[in-house]
Amino acid sequence: MSVLWFGGDHNPEQWPEEVRARDIGLMHRAGVNLVTVGVFSWSLLEPREGEFDFGWLDREMDRLAGAGVGVALATPTASPPPWFSAAHPDAMPVTAEGVRLSHGSRDTYDVTAPAYRAACERIVRALAERYSAHPALRLWHVHNEYGTWSHSVHADRAFREWLRGRHGDLAALNGAWTTAFWGQHYSDWEQVRTPRATQYLANPAHVLDFRRFLSDAMLDHYLAQRGVLREANPAVPVTTNLAFGDWVPVDPWKWAEHVDLVAVDDYPSGTGAEAAAQTAFAADLARSYAARVPGGRSPWLLMEQAAGVVYTPGRTVAKAPGEIVRHSLSHVARGSRGAMFFQWRASRGGSEQWHAGMVPHAGPDSRIFREVCELGSLLPRVAGAAEAPVPADAALTWDPESWWAMGAASLPDSGLDHLSAVRQVHRVLWRSGRTVDLVRPDRPLPPVPLLVVSSLYLLSDGAAAHLTDYVERGGTLVVTPFSGIADPQGTVRTGGYPGALRDLLGVRVEELRPAPDTELFDTGLGPVRGWTEAVRTTGAEAVAVHRSGPYAGDPVLTRNRRGAGSAWYLSVRLDDTALGALLAGVGAAGAGPDATAADLRPEPGSPFGADPGVELVRRVEGSLTWVFVLNHADAPYRVDPAGLGLAPGAVDLLTDAAAEGLTVRGGGVAVLHGRLSP
Amino acid sequence: MSVLWFGGDHNPEQWPEEVRARDIGLMHRAGVNLVTVGVFSWSLLEPREGEFDFGWLDREMDRLAGAGVGVALATPTASPPPWFSAAHPDAMPVTAEGVRLSHGSRDTYDVTAPAYRAACERIVRALAERYSAHPALRLWHVHNEYGTWSHSVHADRAFREWLRGRHGDLAALNGAWTTAFWGQHYSDWEQVRTPRATQYLANPAHVLDFRRFLSDAMLDHYLAQRGVLREANPAVPVTTNLAFGDWVPVDPWKWAEHVDLVAVDDYPSGTGAEAAAQTAFAADLARSYAARVPGGRSPWLLMEQAAGVVYTPGRTVAKAPGEIVRHSLSHVARGSRGAMFFQWRASRGGSEQWHAGMVPHAGPDSRIFREVCELGSLLPRVAGAAEAPVPADAALTWDPESWWAMGAASLPDSGLDHLSAVRQVHRVLWRSGRTVDLVRPDRPLPPVPLLVVSSLYLLSDGAAAHLTDYVERGGTLVVTPFSGIADPQGTVRTGGYPGALRDLLGVRVEELRPAPDTELFDTGLGPVRGWTEAVRTTGAEAVAVHRSGPYAGDPVLTRNRRGAGSAWYLSVRLDDTALGALLAGVGAAGAGPDATAADLRPEPGSPFGADPGVELVRRVEGSLTWVFVLNHADAPYRVDPAGLGLAPGAVDLLTDAAAEGLTVRGGGVAVLHGRLSP
Amino acid sequence: MSVLWFGGDHNPEQWPEEVRARDIGLMHRAGVNLVTVGVFSWSLLEPREGEFDFGWLDREMDRLAGAGVGVALATPTASPPPWFSAAHPDAMPVTAEGVRLSHGSRDTYDVTAPAYRAACERIVRALAERYSAHPALRLWHVHNEYGTWSHSVHADRAFREWLRGRHGDLAALNGAWTTAFWGQHYSDWEQVRTPRATQYLANPAHVLDFRRFLSDAMLDHYLAQRGVLREANPAVPVTTNLAFGDWVPVDPWKWAEHVDLVAVDDYPSGTGAEAAAQTAFAADLARSYAARVPGGRSPWLLMEQAAGVVYTPGRTVAKAPGEIVRHSLSHVARGSRGAMFFQWRASRGGSEQWHAGMVPHAGPDSRIFREVCELGSLLPRVAGAAEAPVPADAALTWDPESWWAMGAASLPDSGLDHLSAVRQVHRVLWRSGRTVDLVRPDRPLPPVPLLVVSSLYLLSDGAAAHLTDYVERGGTLVVTPFSGIADPQGTVRTGGYPGALRDLLGVRVEELRPAPDTELFDTGLGPVRGWTEAVRTTGAEAVAVHRSGPYAGDPVLTRNRRGAGSAWYLSVRLDDTALGALLAGVGAAGAGPDATAADLRPEPGSPFGADPGVELVRRVEGSLTWVFVLNHADAPYRVDPAGLGLAPGAVDLLTDAAAEGLTVRGGGVAVLHGRLSP
Repeated sequence: MSVLWFGGDHNPEQWPEEVRARDIGLMHRAGVNLVTVGVFSWSLLEPREGEFDFGWLDREMDRLAGAGVGVALATPTASPPPWFSAAHPDAMPVTAEGVRLSHGSRDTYDVTAPAYRAACERIVRALAERYSAHPALRLWHVHNEYGTWSHSVHADRAFREWLRGRHGDLAALNGAWTTAFWGQHYSDWEQVRTPRATQYLANPAHVLDFRRFLSDAMLDHYLAQRGVLREANPAVPVTTNLAFGDWVPVDPWKWAEHVDLVAVDDYPSGTGAEAAAQTAFAADLARSYAARVPGGRSPWLLMEQAAGVVYTPGRTVAKAPGEIVRHSLSHVARGSRGAMFFQWRASRGGSEQWHAGMVPHAGPDSRIFREVCELGSLLPRVAGAAEAPVPADAALTWDPESWWAMGAASLPDSGLDHLSAVRQVHRVLWRSGRTVDLVRPDRPLPPVPLLVVSSLYLLSDGAAAHLTDYVERGGTLVVTPFSGIADPQGTVRTGGYPGALRDLLGVRVEELRPAPDTELFDTGLGPVRGWTEAVRTTGAEAVAVHRSGPYAGDPVLTRNRRGAGSAWYLSVRLDDTALGALLAGVGAAGAGPDATAADLRPEPGSPFGADPGVELVRRVEGSLTWVFVLNHADAPYRVDPAGLGLAPGAVDLLTDAAAEGLTVRGGGVAVLHGRLSP
Repeated sequence: MSVLWFGGDHNPEQWPEEVRARDIGLMHRAGVNLVTVGVFSWSLLEPREGEFDFGWLDREMDRLAGAGVGVALATPTASPPPWFSAAHPDAMPVTAEGVRLSHGSRDTYDVTAPAYRAACERIVRALAERYSAHPALRLWHVHNEYGTWSHSVHADRAFREWLRGRHGDLAALNGAWTTAFWGQHYSDWEQVRTPRATQYLANPAHVLDFRRFLSDAMLDHYLAQRGVLREANPAVPVTTNLAFGDWVPVDPWKWAEHVDLVAVDDYPSGTGAEAAAQTAFAADLARSYAARVPGGRSPWLLMEQAAGVVYTPGRTVAKAPGEIVRHSLSHVARGSRGAMFFQWRASRGGSEQWHAGMVPHAGPDSRIFREVCELGSLLPRVAGAAEAPVPADAALTWDPESWWAMGAASLPDSGLDHLSAVRQVHRVLWRSGRTVDLVRPDRPLPPVPLLVVSSLYLLSDGAAAHLTDYVERGGTLVVTPFSGIADPQGTVRTGGYPGALRDLLGVRVEELRPAPDTELFDTGLGPVRGWTEAVRTTGAEAVAVHRSGPYAGDPVLTRNRRGAGSAWYLSVRLDDTALGALLAGVGAAGAGPDATAADLRPEPGSPFGADPGVELVRRVEGSLTWVFVLNHADAPYRVDPAGLGLAPGAVDLLTDAAAEGLTVRGGGVAVLHGRLSP
Repeated sequence: MSVLWFGGDHNPEQWPEEVRARDIGLMHRAGVNLVTVGVFSWSLLEPREGEFDFGWLDREMDRLAGAGVGVALATPTASPPPWFSAAHPDAMPVTAEGVRLSHGSRDTYDVTAPAYRAACERIVRALAERYSAHPALRLWHVHNEYGTWSHSVHADRAFREWLRGRHGDLAALNGAWTTAFWGQHYSDWEQVRTPRATQYLANPAHVLDFRRFLSDAMLDHYLAQRGVLREANPAVPVTTNLAFGDWVPVDPWKWAEHVDLVAVDDYPSGTGAEAAAQTAFAADLARSYAARVPGGRSPWLLMEQAAGVVYTPGRTVAKAPGEIVRHSLSHVARGSRGAMFFQWRASRGGSEQWHAGMVPHAGPDSRIFREVCELGSLLPRVAGAAEAPVPADAALTWDPESWWAMGAASLPDSGLDHLSAVRQVHRVLWRSGRTVDLVRPDRPLPPVPLLVVSSLYLLSDGAAAHLTDYVERGGTLVVTPFSGIADPQGTVRTGGYPGALRDLLGVRVEELRPAPDTELFDTGLGPVRGWTEAVRTTGAEAVAVHRSGPYAGDPVLTRNRRGAGSAWYLSVRLDDTALGALLAGVGAAGAGPDATAADLRPEPGSPFGADPGVELVRRVEGSLTWVFVLNHADAPYRVDPAGLGLAPGAVDLLTDAAAEGLTVRGGGVAVLHGRLSP
């Protein structure tokens, strides 16, 4: 039978024995079945170079095993001990300005430094040998949130090796980086360094390759540890937790091929409905990455979230009553194999003493712990859905490399941001009730009814072919500005934008036309500001045009019929409302022969409806379905089982009540389970 | 007979002989009786290592002595000469990023560097030997505005020594700093360094101890100089000028125990009424520190202020006519032994060529010099009050260590700021006409009618006991959010906030609830935003509660009767108006048995009244009183001697007019003197 | 016959042979007659130290010569090759914080490093020997936009030498820098360094001299190259392109004496009318500098501008249709010997892949290339005016040293900015239809009807004498706040502001009175905020005064009759409208005996009129005139040839139409040519 993991990071080393002992009882009360142990324990496990002290960890592992609580045991390499940096200053990271960092925080390491790699192997091997057959062990949790950069001589050496692997010879490198511009031609590999502080703008291709290299260099560090761990016991799954948010240090699509389970840390930065939208995005993203995990069951796990709070910029806002449960269930609904937290018990000291805990500073007699216990009691009721697929209503491209490339280049508009653009499309689709798969077009695309490509700056010829294929097989594709602009190295495709997609879209953009925000364009699609383009149709039909102004008559929205499908190009920026209406209309009208601008009005959109404030997610396995109902609104929500595709007889797994006639209170949840209606 | 000092920093070395000679006449015209000399003169007094040139200073000291102008002679160590940094680069300060600074400004030194310490001792000894018996000498002014940090190897060594003194052994250090978090456990003292640039968040306990160390390391430097100076002539008092404002590099409570006079530099950053409030805060703070000066007469002196201008961010705003006099008298009213300025004559060149002077660039034929002369003529008239105590109506806690700690930690809200919170309480009490003593609860507290504890993050058990004592003896205590949260090392007290004060307040806060500023809570106490808490009473009564919303019924303001007094807890943030009303109401109702929320309406408040725009400060010695009347408003103010506690027959010392029937013009001042009415 | 240059930076090394070959045809189509080649080609021309590869450049030079396209051949020293920085790290620039930069961008060099100087000489000599007699060569383009600073030991050494040259001995240096302030007295030259990172505020005189030194050190680098180039072929003119905008790394007045042609790069940062105003300012500035080029014909050339876009902060805004032509003709109207662009073909890669090109990414089938071709067809029609003088209606002082000095000092108001003040005066004069010469008063001033001195912080006695001379000979001088404040070293002139101009203006300012922006002063001159002064007349008459408030009666605008002219002092800040009205009124009333405040109302102003949105610029040679009409507005503009001073029979050179009855369409242009009406 399936299990949903529930628990958090557990740091017994921070607490006296009486607290540790009491924790077991509290874990039982909450229903905890997995804790992450040892993430930053290196300096206690190896207090001096080569001297190990496993006593406290032995006792804790045994205690947890005895209590029936599983352990995700971490390798502690994300925080080398003070003795390490004192002994090996050359293995500390160096900033682009040449500042050599030292201990005093966490994450202070250089994955390319031989001394660091050797020290990591030693501690990981010691842990593997000691615990790989321990009865508490469920999962190896390698390192933590990979993401430290370095500009050391070690990094230079590794970067050069990586570049040789990617480009072959210097001539190819000079070509790929357009070093003819600004006289940057390299005549010897030794001249190539990481992109350090320089006088003026860096070369964007140099920076982009450095970002790729960093991801691969960290992956190499991960794989070395995985090798040691698998050698000790091939049966224990291995993963590492990926950081989410507006910081993408590694390429998760690639990493997902090397983990047994995608583990993600999710910390929304908004509150209320925005937090719910961000949560859904993170979960959809994790599930999408997980599709690349070998084995095909898309395993992923929410490894960290904050109990009771949301970290908005400058303020840690308290979650409203019920949000802990709703956010956790949103992840589970979208495929997570559980709901884990950072951390079990809020720390009293250290840099994150104000980070939330399942057991807060106030102790178990607290709203937060009560909601944690409630969540713990609900999860086993929905464990049956743990491996059931999550069908998607739409797909949306997301490409970390494009995001990196757009961050490195001096674009015509500082507001151009791949991740923001993707988030906007996801948000409006989520609001309209759609479940969205994120995809990267380096592989053939799934036959979803709607695919959106938004500000996908880099596009290879192969990826463009996959998009064409998708349309020709009957798909509806919507492309937004600044997609297909450059090749994978960031070199602009000449002859007219959007380079790689001109043919598929049947348009040629002669000129980008960023405009001051004070200028408003009348296009009939909602308020348009800040950006427009000189679009010429070369096969497409214009569905909307500039209705006045200096560009009157120029196309703004076009449709190109191609094979069994159609490819739309939207050349302007819309706000959420207008974009939502447009995607709903296009989604409905897409494949039809005669859709016009007038059809692009808001309408319910998806078969799943769009009840404001109520999030609905469906899992389906065979003829069975689970519909997660998360009522983010204050008003009660009356369930319509038939409308949700349920055959008569469905029940709410959380309360065992019949789905028929069920009302979910404001802020409440339900998980309807039953057969699909025929 | 008492004297009030009047004058400023005098830099004859910047001017040709004819100006120096003319200055004496101008000083006489203005009534100057003290000038500060030599603050930054090291490079002229010792132009090459070990070669002294005292000629110009000899001449100036003699000239001033001859003219009857006293001298506060400075040790020039705040600005080591260029030859010093050229010869001793290792004694230059190093930033956290490793940048070694060099000469070209001022304050560029490392108090932990042996070469610097030796050079300081040499120049100070030379000055002491030459001038300690000079007839012009009134005061030694050591260094200037201590405050430079360094991350050098010298600092590392001194920091380790200091830590050994504070913590004893490494195990205690590891415990106090919670190094178990993020794997920062130290296994050898040599691993401990100052908090340099590192990859991510620093350890707040590490940073807090570094701040304490810096204050002590600078104090050690000061004491070394004091030792040399006292050795030469124990009769001459010694001090150093403390910088004020939103920058607190040292712990003035501690330093006050080692000076013969607290000297402060006060530069408000606001204009108009805000500048007056800031001036009163600075003066109350200085008087409060001075209570710790050995001897018990609370001696302090406004050592620097700007003539004619206020430094607001980005703009040096001209003071309105009369403000020079009013700000100076506000300091004198609150206990300053005079009114000094930086500087006597505005510089023509150098970094502060646009800093104000008593003699401005335009020369003596100027509004500023005329007002300076007016002030000089008034001060002798009020000199009789120079040593008369300043009775306080209320007390307010202020703790630099809490401010440092809150700056180091990643708090739940970036708006949490101990100094801002203290300033707000002082401001609303000042507006209601109260004179406020600042206190630190490391000692028994004075029996004032009202004591406010505002965002006092760190609290020792002993300090909590002093607060309890204060209440039990009949005091009224008001505590605001984020007080008593952590122990002196910054470790959060678990079990419920506000940790150390739970028992005294009779409440337990289960959860902090920061909220977006867009959310408005209805509590009946005025607009409440941004912060609320889950307060549970454990003995206290709820005086005000959330009246609606998700937290309806939760207490917001509580009162706990304890012994002869009462302890109030306010768990939300109020604006100035609402907080002023609340403190006025609590102050009035505090000890009474039945005060309710309805009593917390604004009312006149103090026996001293609160005439808008008129600042009233009382000095009392025996049966005599002086009432300083500073009319910051445009409208004239009619004096009511009886209402101010004066017996018939009082006079205005500034004009010799009778107090009875006196009207103080808009912008004007008076100092009423007479017997206290019985 | 005269020629106007037309073309742009041409980088064949970035493109494959087929593109290079096609480019010749496109250049012919556009009418290109000059291209800049090789600006950043060092790493291709000398791929290894001492090994040259001129093959590709030989072929391109021959191809261009064959096609009749001239070449401005660049020395490539602004971008040393990677092998150079690898071999000579000591020749890389060092920041004030000590960060040594390295290759990866451009402009990464240290002009004071011997290794860099030697390498520059080698490559320049090789280019000179090879190409100085090449038939395509028209001009040597040395380096590119000089402007890199360094704080290396080489810079220290060179700075000291320069300082010896300027100040003679250390005593003079100590005096000029007021090192008596903050104890910065130097006792040995070795102690003097460039202004590196220090603890607090830098010495403004130190920084100012460093800025001067940088300009001279870069000039020395330029002159060394010019020497090599002239040695090879003295007949080829030599120049370097100066960067324009809010960044003034060198003193162009001084550099103009050493070039054969002033070359400027102009990138406005505003859009619409603001872009047109900025364009006119840049052109007037370039022409004014060019007056110092030896030979007396004021040769200058717009060397770079962007085709089709304007770089506003954060967004590259598309130029409206017609702006390419109008901006280019504004430069030509004001004296440019052509209209060049950066660059011919937009790059696909590199840091500026999003910089505009005459041939954009989309290729020749584009709006931008079509407008480029249009411009190319118009220029030959107006080439007859190429050397005709541009008569000015007013003059305005501009002094880079004052701008540097104001940036270095901590002024009473962060809004004080010489360049902004100059730009404002130029803008309002431009809007009123005046053509303005920029001048620096280190020389006798031209007899224009109106001269404005705005925030000219530094003023020598000699410069003040030139201003006095100007007035006495009948000129009308208007001075705005913060002029004449300091001597050339930045030392404030005491005794009353505005120091050096007190006598000429007949006023003495007793006090500067910066005020909060919330305070509004009533002076009758339009809204006055943020700044006022305590003005006392000492011979001048008050034309406007404070009409209420604390300063009621104080003069705000004064006039001093002196010789045949008058000198006005405006002591407040006005917005564009009020300043425009005032300058128009003063310009009209200036020399008259009885002008009053009531005369300072807006009126047409110049004989050239001020038709809103239509820019009119006149060239005059002998009895011939050319009137450039640039219609920036949407509405058509009807030409009045007589009103513009044209005798009957004039024609529009662009269309050959008669001027009489001509209407210039909205956005359009005309160049009227004919005899001056008698």
